[in-house]
Amino acid sequence: MRTCYTGQVCRDHLGQTVTLFGWVHRRRDHGGVIFIDMRDRAGLAQIVFDPDNAEGFAIAERLRNEFCIRVTGLVRERPAGTTNSDLASGEIEILCREVEILNPSVTPPFQLDDENLSETTRLTHRVLDLRRGQMQRNMMLRYRVSIEVRKFLDDLGFIDIETPMLTKSTPEGARDYLVPSRVNAGEFFALPQSPQLFKQMLMVSGFDRYYQITKCFRDEDLRADRQPEFTQIDCETSFLNETEIRAIFESMIRHVFKAVQNVDLAETFPIMPYSEAMRLYGSDKPDLRVKLEFTDLTDVMKDVDFKVFAQAATTEGSRVVALRVPAGGSISRSEIDNYTKFVAIYGAKGLAWIKVNEVAKGRDGLQSPIVKNLHDAALAEMIKRTGAQDGDLIFFGADRAKVVNDAIGALRVKIGHSDFGRANGLFDNVWKPLWVVDFPMFEYDEEADRYVAAHHPFTSPKDGHEDLLGTDPSKAIAKAYDMVLNGWEIGGGSVRIHREEVQSKVFRALKIDAEEAQLKFGFLLDALQYGAPPHGGIAFGLDRIVTMMTGAESIRDVIAFPKTQRAQCLLTQAPSPVDEKQLRELHIRLRQAEIKQP
Amino acid sequence: MRTCYTGQVCRDHLGQTVTLFGWVHRRRDHGGVIFIDMRDRAGLAQIVFDPDNAEGFAIAERLRNEFCIRVTGLVRERPAGTTNSDLASGEIEILCREVEILNPSVTPPFQLDDENLSETTRLTHRVLDLRRGQMQRNMMLRYRVSIEVRKFLDDLGFIDIETPMLTKSTPEGARDYLVPSRVNAGEFFALPQSPQLFKQMLMVSGFDRYYQITKCFRDEDLRADRQPEFTQIDCETSFLNETEIRAIFESMIRHVFKAVQNVDLAETFPIMPYSEAMRLYGSDKPDLRVKLEFTDLTDVMKDVDFKVFAQAATTEGSRVVALRVPAGGSISRSEIDNYTKFVAIYGAKGLAWIKVNEVAKGRDGLQSPIVKNLHDAALAEMIKRTGAQDGDLIFFGADRAKVVNDAIGALRVKIGHSDFGRANGLFDNVWKPLWVVDFPMFEYDEEADRYVAAHHPFTSPKDGHEDLLGTDPSKAIAKAYDMVLNGWEIGGGSVRIHREEVQSKVFRALKIDAEEAQLKFGFLLDALQYGAPPHGGIAFGLDRIVTMMTGAESIRDVIAFPKTQRAQCLLTQAPSPVDEKQLRELHIRLRQAEIKQP
Repeated sequence: MRTCYTGQVCRDHLGQTVTLFGWVHRRRDHGGVIFIDMRDRAGLAQIVFDPDNAEGFAIAERLRNEFCIRVTGLVRERPAGTTNSDLASGEIEILCREVEILNPSVTPPFQLDDENLSETTRLTHRVLDLRRGQMQRNMMLRYRVSIEVRKFLDDLGFIDIETPMLTKSTPEGARDYLVPSRVNAGEFFALPQSPQLFKQMLMVSGFDRYYQITKCFRDEDLRADRQPEFTQIDCETSFLNETEIRAIFESMIRHVFKAVQNVDLAETFPIMPYSEAMRLYGSDKPDLRVKLEFTDLTDVMKDVDFKVFAQAATTEGSRVVALRVPAGGSISRSEIDNYTKFVAIYGAKGLAWIKVNEVAKGRDGLQSPIVKNLHDAALAEMIKRTGAQDGDLIFFGADRAKVVNDAIGALRVKIGHSDFGRANGLFDNVWKPLWVVDFPMFEYDEEADRYVAAHHPFTSPKDGHEDLLGTDPSKAIAKAYDMVLNGWEIGGGSVRIHREEVQSKVFRALKIDAEEAQLKFGFLLDALQYGAPPHGGIAFGLDRIVTMMTGAESIRDVIAFPKTQRAQCLLTQAPSPVDEKQLRELHIRLRQAEIKQP
Repeated sequence: MRTCYTGQVCRDHLGQTVTLFGWVHRRRDHGGVIFIDMRDRAGLAQIVFDPDNAEGFAIAERLRNEFCIRVTGLVRERPAGTTNSDLASGEIEILCREVEILNPSVTPPFQLDDENLSETTRLTHRVLDLRRGQMQRNMMLRYRVSIEVRKFLDDLGFIDIETPMLTKSTPEGARDYLVPSRVNAGEFFALPQSPQLFKQMLMVSGFDRYYQITKCFRDEDLRADRQPEFTQIDCETSFLNETEIRAIFESMIRHVFKAVQNVDLAETFPIMPYSEAMRLYGSDKPDLRVKLEFTDLTDVMKDVDFKVFAQAATTEGSRVVALRVPAGGSISRSEIDNYTKFVAIYGAKGLAWIKVNEVAKGRDGLQSPIVKNLHDAALAEMIKRTGAQDGDLIFFGADRAKVVNDAIGALRVKIGHSDFGRANGLFDNVWKPLWVVDFPMFEYDEEADRYVAAHHPFTSPKDGHEDLLGTDPSKAIAKAYDMVLNGWEIGGGSVRIHREEVQSKVFRALKIDAEEAQLKFGFLLDALQYGAPPHGGIAFGLDRIVTMMTGAESIRDVIAFPKTQRAQCLLTQAPSPVDEKQLRELHIRLRQAEIKQP
C-alpha cells in the first residue's frame, strides 16, 4: 500500500521506509548512482539507486521517462548543497530498496516540460498533456472551486436538482444542438442551452432554493474562447429581491476566492448601472483594473468645424468621447498608428488625438492635426472635463455609439494592459469585481426588425416599468444583474417574471404572438398560473472563473477534454461518420451533395 | 425576510412574531374563524385568521388552494385537543397579523393529496406534482445522497473531473444517441453511454482518483424502469487491487445509508462468486432477503423416466433444480396454477412440483403427478439434498440453464415477497447487500456468432487467465464485481486492463480486428503504451439507489423531469418537430416516407 503521494514525502518521513507509486519524470546518472525524479499528482520526489542494491540498480538502468513504477525506500536527507527549495520534497531523497516496473512506456512524442508545444500536439496527445504539472493543478483547482461552491450553497439550503439533457428545441437565442428521436420519428430533442425554464419550474414547484453545476450547449461559431459544451453554476431562489439575491452570490464568489486561493475580494462589490458602465467605459463588463475613463463630449462638439465630431455630436444614437491617457505624451507616433489600426477592428474609421504639451498655453499648448478645427470653447471644455495635465495624451472616438464604445472601450483596455500602462500606474493588478445592473429589457434587432430580449424573455421589468412593455419597450429597465470581474462577465442573472400576465406582455413586446408563445412556452405560462412564487437567480460560467483563477491562456486549459475551434476532439476524433443503419433508425439521411466524400 | 421555513415553526417560536412564505395547502372555515394549512418545502403549519383583524380576514376569505402568500403572525399554542403529532408544527399555530397574496392560483386540475392520479396526469402537470410532499422528500433525499457521496469521496482524495457530453460513437453495446455536427458536415457526436474511456484516460494521465456524478445516455427500448438519460456515480482509482477497490465503495454505500437514513448496513458485505449466485439463486443479482435457495439435481435426474428431467439432466447447458418452499404444502392448486403461468413468462414450459406430506413414508408420503416417473433413488436424494420436511412444497425447473435460472429465479423472488412468504418467515425485510464477483469475461452471442464482453471490453482478466483469451475465452474469468442490494444491481465495476498487449488480446477474442480496434479505440491503445497505471473503478446507478431508499415505485418518482416509456417529456412536449432551416444547417433531412405527417 502507498504511504502517501510521491510529492508529499518530506522531512516528516525522515528515517521511515515509504512506498510510492508514480512515474519516471527524469533520470540522471551521476557518479555511478542513478537518480530518478519520480512524479505523481502531488509533485516530485528524488529516488536514489545505489549500485550496492544490485537488483534495484539493474531495474533502474532500464527505467525511461514515463515508466510507471512502484518504489519502496528509506527517506533520508539530501546531501548538503543539493536541496531544492522549489519542492515540498526538496530537502529529502529516497534511497531505493525495492523497485517494480508496473508498466513501461514507449518514448513520449514530446518532453512533458516543453513549454512550446502547439495546441494541436497537446490536444492530440491530451492524455500525456494532462500529466503536466500545470494541467494537473488546473484540474485540481477547478475541482476545489466546484466543491467550495457546493459547500457554500449547501450551507444556505440550496439543493442540487438535476434537469434534463434531452429537452425541447426553442429556437430563441443561440443555435441548438439537436438529437434525433428514434422512437418518435421526425422529432428531435435539443441539448439545453441552460436549465433556465426547468429551474423556474422548480421554483414554482416550491423547492425554494436550487443549484446545479451542469453542462450547457450552444452550437455557435467558436470565435475567441468558447466551447460547444460549457459548465454553468446555475442557481435560483424564491422570495428574495434583487439586492438579497446579489448579496448571496457575492458572498459565494468571495467564499470561493478565499477558500481556494486565499484571496480577499472586496467586502462589498461596487454596483454600477448599465448606463454608467457604457458612459464611462463603453462596456457592460468594464475592466476596473484599468484606471482610464471616457469623458463624454457629445454636447460640446455639436458646432465644431471638425465634421467627424460635429456629425456624431448631432446624430441620434452617436456620441463623441475623449479618453485621457495621463503621461501619454510619451507615446510615439508609430504607436498611435498601431492603436489606429487596432480600433479599426471595431469599426472606427480613424483615431483622433491631441497631445497636451502645456495646458497653460491654451490652444498653442496642444499638438494635433485636429486642433485647428475645434473652436476655443470646445477645447477649453475638453481640457476642463478630462482634467488633462501637461504631458497627457487624449484620444477621441466619434461615431455611432456602438462603434465608439467598442473601439474606445477596447483601446482603453489595451492601453491599460500595455507596458506603458503598467509603467505609468494605469493598471492596478488586483481582482476588481463589480455588479452591473439596470440593464435595458430589450435591444432592437435591426435584421429581424423587432426587439429581442437583452437577457432572456423571462426577466422581470423593474417595478413601475411594466406599462412601458406596451408603450415604449426601449425604455423598460430589467431587474437584471451581471457579475463582472476584470473585464469578464463571470455571472449573469435576474429576477424572473412570476406573473403570467407580465410574461404575456413581454412575449407581445417581442412580437411572439399568443399561439407561438403557447406552442413554445405553454408549460411555463401554465405553471405561472398556479401561485408561482417571486423568484430569481443567476448562472456563473465555471470554465471562465477557473481560467481567470489559474491565469490560463485559454478555457481549453481548464477542461480535461476540450474541443478545438472547429468543434472537434483531436484525441478521440469526434465527431465522426456513423453507420447507415444508425441513420436509418433515426429516420434521417445525409444531404449527400453537401458532404465531402471521405 | 423569512423567519424560517413554514414547516419548521415549532414550540421554540412560541410568543414570537414570525414571517413565512408558502402556499395555501388547505382552507377551513370553522366557527367564524378561517384556518389555513400553509405549506412550503419543509412542511405545513396552521395559520389562524381571526375576524378581529378585519383586513387580514378579508384577504383570507379570498384565499384558495395553491395561492402563494406571505404571512406574519404570532406563534401560540394550539388549543388543547387540536394538536397534531404528525407535524413538527403540530403543537402550535400562527395567529395572522398580516397576510399578502404574492400570486393567486387558478383551481389546480387535481388535489395535491390525491393518491390515485394516473402517471400521465402527474407528468403532464409535473410542476404541481412536484409540490406533493412525497415528491419533495424524494428530491431532497436524492440530493442528500449525492452530497454524502461527494463528501465521502472528497475525504479520500477523489476529485470530480468533467468528461465530455459530445463524444465519439462506438457502436459496441447499447444504441447511441447521436448529435449531428453542423461544422463537420456528415459527422456525428454521440452522447456518452458512460465516461468509461475518459476516466481510464484520466488514470493514465495520473489523476489517481476520479469521480463524477454525471448523466449517461442509452437509446434503448424503455421496458421496465429505464430512462433515456440516467445518472451514474462514476469512480475510478489507480494502484489498488480488486479487494481494495471494493472496500472503498462498500464503505461509501455504508456511509450514505448511515448519513441519509441512519441505517447500518452489514459491517462486511458477503462476497459471492457469479457461479455460486447462479447455482443457488439463478441470478447474478440475488435478492438475499428471500430465504429460499435452489438445490441442483442435474446429476440425480439423468436416468429418470420423467423425460423433461432426464433430457435436461443429460443435455450440455441445461440443468435441473429444486426450489424447496418450507410449509408450502398450504399453497393451493390454483395458486400453483398461477405460478405456472408466471414462470411461462420466462420461457418455462411447465412447473413440476411435489408436496411433501410425510417424509417418513418415502414415495407414499409425496403428492405429485410426477412422482411415479421418478425412481426411489432420485426421490431419496432429492429429499436429502433439499432437506425437505413434512408440509413442504418443492418446485422444479428443468430446461436450458438460462430458462431454469430466469424462471425459477423469478419464482423464488415472487414466493418470497408474497403474503405467504412474508407470513412464513421466507422474507427478511432488511437491507441485504452483497458483492457478486468472478464474472466470466465473455458471453457467447448466438446471433452475432461471436463472444461479446460480459461487462465491457476493458475489463481485466483474472491473473493467470490471460492465456485463456486466445485458447478458451469462455473459461476466462474477469476481475469484475457488482454490488447487489435486495435483488438489484446498484453498482458494477472492474479492474481494467492497463497493458496494451492484453487489451489487444481481448479485442481479438471479441473478433475486433486490429484495424477496427485502431479506428474505434486507437486513442485508448495509444494511451496504454505510455506507462498506464494499474487501475479500476465502479459506477453506481444513482436513480436506482434513490428509488430503493425512498421506496418509490418507479425511478420516475426520483427524477424531477423524467421521460415516459415512449421517451417523451409530457410537460414540455419534447421531442418535437424542428424547422427545416435547422435540419439544413445540420446537413440532414428526414426520411419522409417513414414519418407520419402532423
